[in-house]
Amino acid sequence: MPQTLAHKLITAHLTDGEPTPGTEIGLRVDQTLTQDATGTLVMQELEAFGLRRARTELSAQYVDHNLLQTDEKNAEDHAYLRTAAAHYGLWYSPPGNGVSHPTHMQRFGAPGKTLAGSDSHTCAAGSLGMLAIGVGGLEVALAITGAPLRLRMPHVWGVHLDGRLPPWVSAKDVVLEMLRRHGVAGGAGRIIEYHGPGLAELTAMDRHVIANMGAELGATTTVFPADDAVHDFLRAEDREADFTPLAADPGADYDLTEHIDLSTLEPLIARPRSPGNVVPVREAAGTDIGQVVIGSSANPGLRDFAIAADMVRGRRTAPQVSFDINPTSRQILTDLAATGDLAALVTAGARLHQTGCLGCIGMGQAPAEGTHSLRTFPRNFPGRSGTPDDSVWLCSPETATAAALTGRITDPRDLADDLDLHPRPRLPQRSAVNTAMLVAPPPADDAERIRPEKGPNISALPEFTALPDHLDAPVLLITGDDVSTDEISPAGAHALPLRSNIPELARFTFTRLDPDYPRRAADTGPHIVIGGDNYGQGSSREHAAITPRYLGVQLVIAKSFARIHWQNLVNFGILPLRFTDPDDHDRIDLGDVLTADGLRDRLRTGGPLTLRNTTKSRDITAEPHLSERQTEAVLAGGIIPLSANSP
Amino acid sequence: MPQTLAHKLITAHLTDGEPTPGTEIGLRVDQTLTQDATGTLVMQELEAFGLRRARTELSAQYVDHNLLQTDEKNAEDHAYLRTAAAHYGLWYSPPGNGVSHPTHMQRFGAPGKTLAGSDSHTCAAGSLGMLAIGVGGLEVALAITGAPLRLRMPHVWGVHLDGRLPPWVSAKDVVLEMLRRHGVAGGAGRIIEYHGPGLAELTAMDRHVIANMGAELGATTTVFPADDAVHDFLRAEDREADFTPLAADPGADYDLTEHIDLSTLEPLIARPRSPGNVVPVREAAGTDIGQVVIGSSANPGLRDFAIAADMVRGRRTAPQVSFDINPTSRQILTDLAATGDLAALVTAGARLHQTGCLGCIGMGQAPAEGTHSLRTFPRNFPGRSGTPDDSVWLCSPETATAAALTGRITDPRDLADDLDLHPRPRLPQRSAVNTAMLVAPPPADDAERIRPEKGPNISALPEFTALPDHLDAPVLLITGDDVSTDEISPAGAHALPLRSNIPELARFTFTRLDPDYPRRAADTGPHIVIGGDNYGQGSSREHAAITPRYLGVQLVIAKSFARIHWQNLVNFGILPLRFTDPDDHDRIDLGDVLTADGLRDRLRTGGPLTLRNTTKSRDITAEPHLSERQTEAVLAGGIIPLSANSP
Repeated sequence: MPQTLAHKLITAHLTDGEPTPGTEIGLRVDQTLTQDATGTLVMQELEAFGLRRARTELSAQYVDHNLLQTDEKNAEDHAYLRTAAAHYGLWYSPPGNGVSHPTHMQRFGAPGKTLAGSDSHTCAAGSLGMLAIGVGGLEVALAITGAPLRLRMPHVWGVHLDGRLPPWVSAKDVVLEMLRRHGVAGGAGRIIEYHGPGLAELTAMDRHVIANMGAELGATTTVFPADDAVHDFLRAEDREADFTPLAADPGADYDLTEHIDLSTLEPLIARPRSPGNVVPVREAAGTDIGQVVIGSSANPGLRDFAIAADMVRGRRTAPQVSFDINPTSRQILTDLAATGDLAALVTAGARLHQTGCLGCIGMGQAPAEGTHSLRTFPRNFPGRSGTPDDSVWLCSPETATAAALTGRITDPRDLADDLDLHPRPRLPQRSAVNTAMLVAPPPADDAERIRPEKGPNISALPEFTALPDHLDAPVLLITGDDVSTDEISPAGAHALPLRSNIPELARFTFTRLDPDYPRRAADTGPHIVIGGDNYGQGSSREHAAITPRYLGVQLVIAKSFARIHWQNLVNFGILPLRFTDPDDHDRIDLGDVLTADGLRDRLRTGGPLTLRNTTKSRDITAEPHLSERQTEAVLAGGIIPLSANSP
Repeated sequence: MPQTLAHKLITAHLTDGEPTPGTEIGLRVDQTLTQDATGTLVMQELEAFGLRRARTELSAQYVDHNLLQTDEKNAEDHAYLRTAAAHYGLWYSPPGNGVSHPTHMQRFGAPGKTLAGSDSHTCAAGSLGMLAIGVGGLEVALAITGAPLRLRMPHVWGVHLDGRLPPWVSAKDVVLEMLRRHGVAGGAGRIIEYHGPGLAELTAMDRHVIANMGAELGATTTVFPADDAVHDFLRAEDREADFTPLAADPGADYDLTEHIDLSTLEPLIARPRSPGNVVPVREAAGTDIGQVVIGSSANPGLRDFAIAADMVRGRRTAPQVSFDINPTSRQILTDLAATGDLAALVTAGARLHQTGCLGCIGMGQAPAEGTHSLRTFPRNFPGRSGTPDDSVWLCSPETATAAALTGRITDPRDLADDLDLHPRPRLPQRSAVNTAMLVAPPPADDAERIRPEKGPNISALPEFTALPDHLDAPVLLITGDDVSTDEISPAGAHALPLRSNIPELARFTFTRLDPDYPRRAADTGPHIVIGGDNYGQGSSREHAAITPRYLGVQLVIAKSFARIHWQNLVNFGILPLRFTDPDDHDRIDLGDVLTADGLRDRLRTGGPLTLRNTTKSRDITAEPHLSERQTEAVLAGGIIPLSANSP
């Protein structure tokens, strides 16, 4: 039977289970990716597992989030990651090398490989025909120890592309179109597989843009075939030997299908404050702006900066607009300098920043309140920019640059007409390949002698106890739909430096929804959180499970969960339950006390659970949907105590 | 009688007084410079003075400090400064243009002009034969209203240079040699005037390096002649028309004299944690380091980056070292890209940061505790880096880069031998002159219609009351010698965004010396601070007077004061007194209550004051050394209430 590419990748890595949608499968993990904001916990988890040396083909630790160094904490994290990576046999990419996803793609990405990463945008590597999945840090740690990655087999969603993108419409508009059609949960439980003749003019980096923001659709991952575009990319990176052609078999059947005629697309923009609020740029045109930012893993390619440079060359950006350029990586920065694009951008008014994620994770670049910011980033969740009442829009580099020139939201096609613009970005045949600062793991004997340097900012992992048999706890927080992990455990310049320090970080938990939550939680002890649909969307940070657990959350009942966060809850011993009747969400009030007896046995038995709302004197039914392995993890208080209890 | 250059500049701008050392003089101010961390208060002071339009030849507002934007505050300050600058008729240099001092020098510096700046390194413009003086913001505000700048006529200290700098020794080593000889108070009450044949090979930017760190010597300012080097500089900046030759008359007499044979100098370094702790690099060689930073107003020139680029070209910096490059300005960044030096630095491992002050003001780049950081900056006061227990060293770009390559403090001459280094920095004949984002003041009619945008982070200036006639207050803090304004009102990424918000910023007051001080002050009310020698050295921030005043400081008695801070105390109604007997410093204990009666009359009468230490039952004598104008300012509660009371 002809196979989809997703099925081929899965079959080739299957360790156990059957690839039938909804059933748990295990996958061999070839590569792992960790970044600093999640990696410091991964290193502590490796320590908890007693690992001596990574058992993957390749594992790489990047530093791209905690770059501002507003005090000693960031630099201490860097020293810890550098030494721990060496100790455990990982590659180490220090600050300055750039954003993990494009850097990994350039240096290590290879068709046919699996990649597990503790960052939700790990899926971007699907651009090269990899099966790349963002997961919680603990699962990456397990993968590094050689354990298979376990997940529910997703449906495979074939998206057939044909036609050619019109001028001033680019890859970002393709994925924004997907978000316009399907919203932020439209890809849940699915692998998106792009195919069709429309691929021919999408470069590997264009595909990275599209695969990256598959995370915003809630998809498990995105895959593209490894075709000539991938071959060209690897050749430009001096890695032609890593190329293997890969594609779906002709006539392969997809579980679901979709069609996009690229020639019909127009410039799109996501309004504040969700990547799913997509409209044509023309509908928003004229809004005054205060900031434009180009960069991030969502528009990382040289082309994305080159088009901006061509648009502003010889012009002057609006002086009331902060026109921020975040070069993706050491290589891309070098290429930008060589092509003259860097000078063109800077001369026209750009602020050139260090390479890294920066404003995309709220690490600087916060806009003034009451001003609009246009960014080529993947996310605009409330407050993620660092400004509580922010107004962040997501768009292509073309749309962003048009706004930088005019000072207001502008359809780049209109500007092109006005200014008679004909950009011809100059892209070198070969990238400025740079491995100078990519630190290879030392030989095993040397590695053992390197001790991880734990500065004062690296706390120990909290120890969590088993799930109690008798539940009796109040509801301390009730959320609406689409709550992101940014609202559960914020990133940003104030919280992010505490990612290695759970007690300190816990003070930020849920504060975007209720500034008083941490105090109330401390006063209350064990308690319950009620969520809406798509609870825990967004980033993969396991801190969004660990810090609520640290503050006493035992149970989250939601209408539905985002995949990564759901698994993170399990991993750290919080029981995630789905309302059998979603309307029950509205029948619970803050402070209601829920009880259940014999919880441990009932979970092992399987099936729906009945909880008693003693305040309202009524019962609620909710479903765990956990595999046996997941049930045991929750019962034990999480994966780490479970492993410690295993022989 | 043959005149020194300093005397010529003073005579040409004298509005009143006689240029006799120690007497108060008034000087006409041609230009002003403000940066964002001091400028937001200056704008509020202009509002308090009711100014309609700047009366200087040229006033420029720069944004170079508050660049990280970890939340909405920085961007709100920028919007305020942009609109207030337009309203009052100032040039505005937005974030991204670069560090104020070299940018001002490049775009506006002109021989023979006076410049008052609310930044202690304003003196750097002495490199062009300007009389450039760092003062508190209020004095800059007064200058913008057309008032003369008042100061005690300094002694003029002639430093005769001859010989040529040996290879691997550069301008930074010249000023470090001055600091080695004279320490951080060696220039107090003096203008340093460099002259002699040794100048011939020092470019204008080299002289900027030397003039800049005259601030670290405590000098009122530094002047260099406007000679061929200045002519060359202005030509490269497309501003040849602004050149006027200026020099001391042959045979001019200096009040004090000094001689440096440049050929005898060697690479020097200031040990932690004072710019005065200077030793030969060889004495410190071998110390492992974690960070190197090149940039800041103390080594701002293209040459300073070019030499670093030449040293690392084709090599790889030590991976455990964060090799940070802070380009000075939009122009210099563009030049670095054009010459290929940018690519050389980045390829070899540099982290390229945005243009601005950054780590020099503790705005990011904080090192890990327990690691050594080598910087080309002017200051290494305790904690200024953002890391409380920091270990920051100050040196030339050559010395810094040598350490980046080896991973430890290294005399660049030794490295040159080892690696057979022969750098030949490529400096373009013309700079990449860029006025694109330097916003000219609008015409007066338009300016009046632009309302300064005061975001929520811009507090009103506190209102201060008159000095009481009867003093009766406890001593709440006793400091040692050389306390800097960084210890009085810290900069850094956490405090700096609050520079427009006195009540919030006040919580940081003196916390580097006593974390509990703000609480104790709030509990106490009016109180007294006792200082040692050179009290208030360093930055010009008037916040170091305003926040103590806000918390209740009425009186500071010290062995001696640094010039700018002393005037700032007066400007905001804190009475500064000098111990008649410096040993009295040690005869006062924390909590002692000091009293004085009839204080107002006694201050107007002049001469020493007797204060009663009622706790110890003994008297102390202390001297105000205030001019009549300064006395009236203190009595009124500061310059602003004094002006409000004037007709």
